[in-house]
Amino acid sequence: MKLAKVVGNVVSTIKTPSHQNKKLMVVIPVDASGKECGDAMIAFDRFHAGAGDYVLILEEGGAARDILGDPKGSFDAVIAGIVDRLN
Amino acid sequence: MKLAKVVGNVVSTIKTPSHQNKKLMVVIPVDASGKECGDAMIAFDRFHAGAGDYVLILEEGGAARDILGDPKGSFDAVIAGIVDRLN
Amino acid sequence: MKLAKVVGNVVSTIKTPSHQNKKLMVVIPVDASGKECGDAMIAFDRFHAGAGDYVLILEEGGAARDILGDPKGSFDAVIAGIVDRLN
Amino acid sequence: MKLAKVVGNVVSTIKTPSHQNKKLMVVIPVDASGKECGDAMIAFDRFHAGAGDYVLILEEGGAARDILGDPKGSFDAVIAGIVDRLN
Amino acid sequence: MKLAKVVGNVVSTIKTPSHQNKKLMVVIPVDASGKECGDAMIAFDRFHAGAGDYVLILEEGGAARDILGDPKGSFDAVIAGIVDRLN
Repeated sequence: MKLAKVVGNVVSTIKTPSHQNKKLMVVIPVDASGKECGDAMIAFDRFHAGAGDYVLILEEGGAARDILGDPKGSFDAVIAGIVDRLN
Repeated sequence: MKLAKVVGNVVSTIKTPSHQNKKLMVVIPVDASGKECGDAMIAFDRFHAGAGDYVLILEEGGAARDILGDPKGSFDAVIAGIVDRLN
Repeated sequence: MKLAKVVGNVVSTIKTPSHQNKKLMVVIPVDASGKECGDAMIAFDRFHAGAGDYVLILEEGGAARDILGDPKGSFDAVIAGIVDRLN
Repeated sequence: MKLAKVVGNVVSTIKTPSHQNKKLMVVIPVDASGKECGDAMIAFDRFHAGAGDYVLILEEGGAARDILGDPKGSFDAVIAGIVDRLN
Repeated sequence: MKLAKVVGNVVSTIKTPSHQNKKLMVVIPVDASGKECGDAMIAFDRFHAGAGDYVLILEEGGAARDILGDPKGSFDAVIAGIVDRLN
């Protein structure tokens, strides 16, 4: 998984049906010290992550469908958890 | 998913059958401020995205087949939605 | 998919059986203006693409097996079409 | 697989159920001489790797489920082994 | 697939069972002129590739299982052939 920081969310009206009623968060990958180290990406969220939260991004279609509880949905990246801290 | 900007489309006569009658858009990944941040890529489109639109690019074969409604097609990246705005 | 330019082909005698009798092309990813923008990669071809052709590279095992008509073969990247032009 | 060095672990309370009771390690990809050469990533571990260990990171959902012995879990990257040395 | 050069092998005692008795080679991606162009990675080998050989690296779990003849193994990257030359 990737470490990432939530920086906002996406508003999109025209989109594939399985994305309706799902939260689309804008996240930026960060390194172990929290410094940005990659391009923004979009991840689905069901853990109510907010801007400023550090999160775990999982990039695998099947796993994303499991986490979102939508076995027929079309997903590739999902927030799998919110980071408390790194040791 | 990736944020990207539509910059054009591809004309290709010699191609695999499942790509016939499908729109092939040229898109460039952008960051959260809309600045280009990656190399051009080609994504299938069924949402009538046009040049200048910001879109969501999903890169997973199974999800692409679902979105395009073609369970036997050969796809890897697809436009999953058109962005209204980022908060 | 990626845009790429064909620059040559690979000769390999010792290889996995499903690669026998298949054309292995050397391609380099290019951006929307045709400028090289990535490292060389190897893609299977059944559309008789030649050096200098611009092609569409699809990177998904299942889709590659479909395009090559070899449901048991071991593939990851394939030429899915030859580009006439970009608009 | 990637070569990587373990640099710590992640503490995360709010996370998807299949990640509960699993060790989440922070690893940084390294090159053949052990020099860091990529961004931090998070990998599941069942081999009790510790900070400073060099490990093999496997990035494939199905393989990760096999290695962790959790056929229904949501994973993408896993520590597949601990490196003794490179020849 | 990627072009790569074999630079050594990995010795690892603590590893997942399906990796036992398999050769783990350290390879570095190269461009069409043979110049190194990426970070070291680890690929399984059954073609007896040795240091200095140029090889074809295939990165897909299912294809890797086929090539290694181990349908239940946990793999992501495998040497699919040894390069004689590039035209």
